[in-house]
Amino acid sequence: AGDIDAGKSKSAKCVACHGMNGKVSIPTYPHLAGQNEVYLDYSMHAYKKGERTGNMANIMSVYVQKLSDQDIADLAAYYASLGDKQ
Amino acid sequence: AGDIDAGKSKSAKCVACHGMNGKVSIPTYPHLAGQNEVYLDYSMHAYKKGERTGNMANIMSVYVQKLSDQDIADLAAYYASLGDKQ
Repeated sequence: AGDIDAGKSKSAKCVACHGMNGKVSIPTYPHLAGQNEVYLDYSMHAYKKGERTGNMANIMSVYVQKLSDQDIADLAAYYASLGDKQ
Repeated sequence: AGDIDAGKSKSAKCVACHGMNGKVSIPTYPHLAGQNEVYLDYSMHAYKKGERTGNMANIMSVYVQKLSDQDIADLAAYYASLGDKQ
């Protein structure tokens, strides 16, 4: 299972696009705060496996390539934990 | 631009997986309420164009195939409008 604190410490590279608390100001990027943990985990793996293509997905694919299964689980736990009101 | 009321009336088929107000109880599906309108529009087009593949994406691809650009815009406007607290 994912570890929230570990996820927070691994989220430094996510912030530029997804915001400090998983709430973005750039409308082309999705908010992550409070999203379902299982869905977040699934979608990061989908980017890593190349199941999502196209110009936006290509950006994400670069970022997730180096993430381990545990890194992904930690990040999913962290962003899910932020809740809707962050 | 998308029309919120039109989007609401077109959302009947979305509810089964994405919940009555875009907040889901099934953790494998993403919440949509309050998500960025531009991102929602982008991602529905990505599913329609086949840019997202894999078992979960294949479900979405079926649902969006029949949607016009206007349908997608309306649905994006509607789910973005629901906000985080719905």
